Amino acid sequence: MSNLKSIAELQAFLNLAIEKTSFQAEPAELYDPISYILSLGGKRLRPALVLMSADMYGYDLVKALPQAIGIELFHNFTLMHDDIMDDAPLRRGKTTVHEKWDTNIGVLSGDALFVKAYQSIVETDPKHLPALMELFNQTALEVCEGQQYDMNFETQENVSMPSYLKMIKFKTAVLLACALKSGALIANASFDDQQNLYDFGIHIGLAFQLMDDILDVYGDQIDFGKQIAGDILCNKKTCLYIKAYEKADDEQRKVLDYYFAHQDFIAEEKISKVMEVYAELDVRDACKGMMDNHYTIAMGHLNALSVNEDRRSTLVQFAELLMVRVN
Amino acid sequence: MSNLKSIAELQAFLNLAIEKTSFQAEPAELYDPISYILSLGGKRLRPALVLMSADMYGYDLVKALPQAIGIELFHNFTLMHDDIMDDAPLRRGKTTVHEKWDTNIGVLSGDALFVKAYQSIVETDPKHLPALMELFNQTALEVCEGQQYDMNFETQENVSMPSYLKMIKFKTAVLLACALKSGALIANASFDDQQNLYDFGIHIGLAFQLMDDILDVYGDQIDFGKQIAGDILCNKKTCLYIKAYEKADDEQRKVLDYYFAHQDFIAEEKISKVMEVYAELDVRDACKGMMDNHYTIAMGHLNALSVNEDRRSTLVQFAELLMVRVN
Repeated sequence: MSNLKSIAELQAFLNLAIEKTSFQAEPAELYDPISYILSLGGKRLRPALVLMSADMYGYDLVKALPQAIGIELFHNFTLMHDDIMDDAPLRRGKTTVHEKWDTNIGVLSGDALFVKAYQSIVETDPKHLPALMELFNQTALEVCEGQQYDMNFETQENVSMPSYLKMIKFKTAVLLACALKSGALIANASFDDQQNLYDFGIHIGLAFQLMDDILDVYGDQIDFGKQIAGDILCNKKTCLYIKAYEKADDEQRKVLDYYFAHQDFIAEEKISKVMEVYAELDVRDACKGMMDNHYTIAMGHLNALSVNEDRRSTLVQFAELLMVRVN
Repeated sequence: MSNLKSIAELQAFLNLAIEKTSFQAEPAELYDPISYILSLGGKRLRPALVLMSADMYGYDLVKALPQAIGIELFHNFTLMHDDIMDDAPLRRGKTTVHEKWDTNIGVLSGDALFVKAYQSIVETDPKHLPALMELFNQTALEVCEGQQYDMNFETQENVSMPSYLKMIKFKTAVLLACALKSGALIANASFDDQQNLYDFGIHIGLAFQLMDDILDVYGDQIDFGKQIAGDILCNKKTCLYIKAYEKADDEQRKVLDYYFAHQDFIAEEKISKVMEVYAELDVRDACKGMMDNHYTIAMGHLNALSVNEDRRSTLVQFAELLMVRVN
């Protein structure tokens, strides 16, 4: 059994493999946007999870590559279509596909990229194909459902915490879980290990998304690199908001309703008034508690794996890296 | 070996199977449009081709159903996204999905329907899955390419006949070919038979599309049910137009350029002036010659099949039914 590869080694391996994959073909309008979005980089975390998982069982990483790349292609397809739906001008600091070309090209090129994801997955050992496809299809549907819930929440007055958690689970966590499980699946891990890796992915994904909500308001602006409280400014119903709304009395609810009804307030006023309510209701700690809880559950699933502790180390490291930003 | 099912029997069998498949799930915004577009009907020709092909080899049609339905779901997915790209208000006489709901729902619900297509295909006997998926993925990519070429042609000044034929091949013919080949593939037909059925699909698809172009201008308005010469009115570069442009002298080219540059002519004037050029250049016969040629090639591929003539009869009937409208 080989030495485990580090996360950085896996990312470098993936970047090389993706660079070497040419998406150039005719018509250019269909394929250029695919090369473009893949050239924008990103951390390649999802495909790295496929490889980490397969590596844990000593599986040949070259043979795990089609599944890993398939998941990365799928992820980029969802970004292309989500950016259309969210009317986003920028993706990773660069112009989005539908802005650089147009919406039709964003739709169709995304569709082609989705097929490319399946083409990559089909290169995996045929004996695993039915199980892999079942897992991947179910995940892809859930990702669509998550995006639809997210859009629904924009106009929905009251979003419950269970609905919110379901949304972030589907929109983010299931793809991490699918990546982890599929690496184990092709490496012939036991069903229990596959399930534990899946559940680790779900809970680390939830913890990550809750952390993201908390950092948007309470993060260090420089480290985090985004506008502070952008979620408050654009009336996004985050964990903090939902928890606040749950705990609020009539007076506090009025404040939230008032400031979340429009966008045309002075930013500083809106942020400070909403954060005042958040502080009164202690929602930062409440959400951090939820986050910690999911992190603990996630680590429990890692500990339940049948492999030796040293073989779990890369995934432990991954979890720690992912969550390092909250204190 | 059972008696062959008629086309009508297969269509009824498919309609029942599709009606029995429930797409109802949460969130409704994602799944209602899927139920809606499938309820609009259509002739179910593509899935019927899967079954006709499988039936020819005596294969159990129930086992061919997942592949057949997968192809019908894929076809409906392309309709949903094409309608967005073409900004079409109506589909089969009913409001299109993006008009009834909105563009975002059309994009996302289409994506989910695409996954549903794969979910159906994966239910096929696993031993055929790698070959089926390879065929289907390649076809799906080509359908995307065909749609992109079609959109490109709208603003492209000069479209050559080979480019046009490639576009209609990818946009229409390859899915018929894929349907036919996949039925034979799961029924364990020989590779030669699979290829002949694929080629039959390509050429019958091309013949059909060329017929469609001819009928738009020269068809009987009542039988055809569309506005006569709608393609001329909306400046569509059809086989007739491309052939005319190929054969035109400077004077005739000026007429075509003039009337295809804008939409704001009196309809009768525009149609009669363009049809005058078409008549001078005899493009109706030229295109009919191309159509007949592809029809003949298609029938040649049917005749080359290893099965008895009586087992080919349903496909012969299908070809005749498809082409009955041109004389």
